[in-house]
Amino acid sequence: MTDAPDIGELNPADRTLMGPGPSDVHPRVLRSMATPLVGYLDPSFVEVMNDVQEGLRYVFRTDNEYTLAVSGTGSAAMEAAFVNLVEPGETVLVPSNGYFGGRMGEMAERAGGDVVTVDAPWGEPLDPADVEAAFDEHQPTVLGFVHGETSTGVRQGDIDELTDIAHAHDAYVVADTVASLGGVEFRTDEWDLDLVYSGSQKCLSAPPGASPLTLSDRAMEKVRNRETRPNSWYLDLEGLWSYWGDDPQYHHTGMTSTLYALRESLRMVAEEGVEAGWARHRRMAGALKAGVEAMGLELLPADEHWLPSLNAVRIPGAADGDALTTHLLEEEGIEIAGGLGDLAGEVVRVGCMGHSARPSNVLRTVGALGRALEVQGVDVDTDAGVAATNRELGE
Amino acid sequence: MTDAPDIGELNPADRTLMGPGPSDVHPRVLRSMATPLVGYLDPSFVEVMNDVQEGLRYVFRTDNEYTLAVSGTGSAAMEAAFVNLVEPGETVLVPSNGYFGGRMGEMAERAGGDVVTVDAPWGEPLDPADVEAAFDEHQPTVLGFVHGETSTGVRQGDIDELTDIAHAHDAYVVADTVASLGGVEFRTDEWDLDLVYSGSQKCLSAPPGASPLTLSDRAMEKVRNRETRPNSWYLDLEGLWSYWGDDPQYHHTGMTSTLYALRESLRMVAEEGVEAGWARHRRMAGALKAGVEAMGLELLPADEHWLPSLNAVRIPGAADGDALTTHLLEEEGIEIAGGLGDLAGEVVRVGCMGHSARPSNVLRTVGALGRALEVQGVDVDTDAGVAATNRELGE
Repeated sequence: MTDAPDIGELNPADRTLMGPGPSDVHPRVLRSMATPLVGYLDPSFVEVMNDVQEGLRYVFRTDNEYTLAVSGTGSAAMEAAFVNLVEPGETVLVPSNGYFGGRMGEMAERAGGDVVTVDAPWGEPLDPADVEAAFDEHQPTVLGFVHGETSTGVRQGDIDELTDIAHAHDAYVVADTVASLGGVEFRTDEWDLDLVYSGSQKCLSAPPGASPLTLSDRAMEKVRNRETRPNSWYLDLEGLWSYWGDDPQYHHTGMTSTLYALRESLRMVAEEGVEAGWARHRRMAGALKAGVEAMGLELLPADEHWLPSLNAVRIPGAADGDALTTHLLEEEGIEIAGGLGDLAGEVVRVGCMGHSARPSNVLRTVGALGRALEVQGVDVDTDAGVAATNRELGE
Repeated sequence: MTDAPDIGELNPADRTLMGPGPSDVHPRVLRSMATPLVGYLDPSFVEVMNDVQEGLRYVFRTDNEYTLAVSGTGSAAMEAAFVNLVEPGETVLVPSNGYFGGRMGEMAERAGGDVVTVDAPWGEPLDPADVEAAFDEHQPTVLGFVHGETSTGVRQGDIDELTDIAHAHDAYVVADTVASLGGVEFRTDEWDLDLVYSGSQKCLSAPPGASPLTLSDRAMEKVRNRETRPNSWYLDLEGLWSYWGDDPQYHHTGMTSTLYALRESLRMVAEEGVEAGWARHRRMAGALKAGVEAMGLELLPADEHWLPSLNAVRIPGAADGDALTTHLLEEEGIEIAGGLGDLAGEVVRVGCMGHSARPSNVLRTVGALGRALEVQGVDVDTDAGVAATNRELGE
């Protein structure tokens, strides 16, 4: 049997987080987690939960009553969406143009759904005409799409068109905003979404673990009228609502410290103003994009589909993506990520999210990326890149 | 659309946590969460995860390779157990002698299992002879039981007998140690358990959100040889192990800050020594029990089934349980809990877990409980109770 292990002082590396999340967490949010705990039904904790709900409605741009934080990461919120909204035998339409659309399909299948896809190349958004055609062909009950694809850096536009098509077919629309909520314009009510979820550790800059989710009355009605129970107890939205709704009852133990943190990060979103936050992400990521392009590199998506919070930069032919990310981490203390799925080895992914979307991070990352490519003997104009980023930051 | 909400400074009430969890969190653990984040695949985070695994093996008393923390609360770990170990159509035997045995049945059913129960009254443990009879009658594939029933304060003994019976029938045994791990003797390997899970916010005194789970090679073999995929993606143990095993790959985003906290709490368990920790819980809860009994009150379970970490105190006939817990919270700043399920109105539940299992908390809780009963006009001898607790604390 194991002896007592010798665990030393906690001392993780000092990093600048410019990957796909977690992003840098503001000192105010870090400090909030050092607050002593209260019980999960304590009246003062119920106030914390109410504040979280108000903050989430604000950042989701919704008046949805059914707004809460799932006790898990963004993937738990994704599973909550599909496990509740899909009944066995229903047809679910998901996109094939990125890693997380694929994950939606995986979850919808495990929920008993028949999964069909609407296709677009990795690096491009869905075309509403293709979605319409898929609806005519398959008559799905649920359409899932990804607002900001972390794997490709593509922003899905035309969202009101997607919801119009789905609603004309009496279907429900689920939006993944894990990599975009709080960083890129998203309007739950105006665009008529049925269920939207996100993560806490990206543009909201809280630690991972409490994941925003909101659904309309119509979507909750579908959940309440299911013929079969969702096959997850932990993520059953009726159960979760018994805790998050008025007159909170025990369902599972609320995530005290994680919700303290999410509350503080939402408080900071409210202080800055959500539209000002979107503008800051666009400005900071714009400076990063300008620098990368001035250096001679290209982003994967076309400009009109650019996702400011996640910049997928094409790796020049001569360069080794793994060596690039390793060099940045080990020599510069900067985390960026390699490609995921179909794009492994093709791109590096540079996040620009939340508290990481600030001038010092952006300027330093552009400079370090250039140097790391030079080390590999790739011909890039690092000076021009840094100069371009610096100029954009001054505007 | 919602305007920016006016969210003020985080200011939850100052409480002494003597309920069924969360328990008081040590300042070292609180402070660990203020540590800046690193990426979930950062080499220094992989070290954090390795430390967590070593600490968990130590507190579980196991050499199981497959040892990890589930990214969710104890109920997520429970769901992970049943959703992975139960295939549709298999028979699952769960106990009916408490709230959490019932929850096991609920989850096993949603995993597609046929649930049968082995019965004992609330307040008593399972009798191995009844388990044997249930095995002979139903031939279940999986037996679940609860080591420390949070709803009744009962400690299940005879665990090696239960595993012997199950293994003689080629079945697998799942143990719930949510309310006991680190506080009450439990020996995963010596008692030959197949899968054991727990929570972080009880005797380990970390915040809720990262839930210990360990399973034997034999149990993992069953998971790997399933004919159908588990119907949860988020809790699929093969997927989780692709992240927690050697050569960690992205599955979902690891819970950075929550794992920092769990690591620090496990570090403190290792410093104290796990057997010393069990003894401290027994000593502190023993002082609490002596005080409550000297006051003239009774615990629900018989002495030999007493669970030190959770003390279910019978409410005297004249008293109102809700008024009692409210009085303690509002007038004394102490959280204890009312009865759950069948025991609502019958007991109050006084935890004695982790950093809450210390002299000041115990003495103060006994005194406050006496005063709160006196306020209701119940005839209790508070002075005798406090004196008895104080004497026991000195021994």
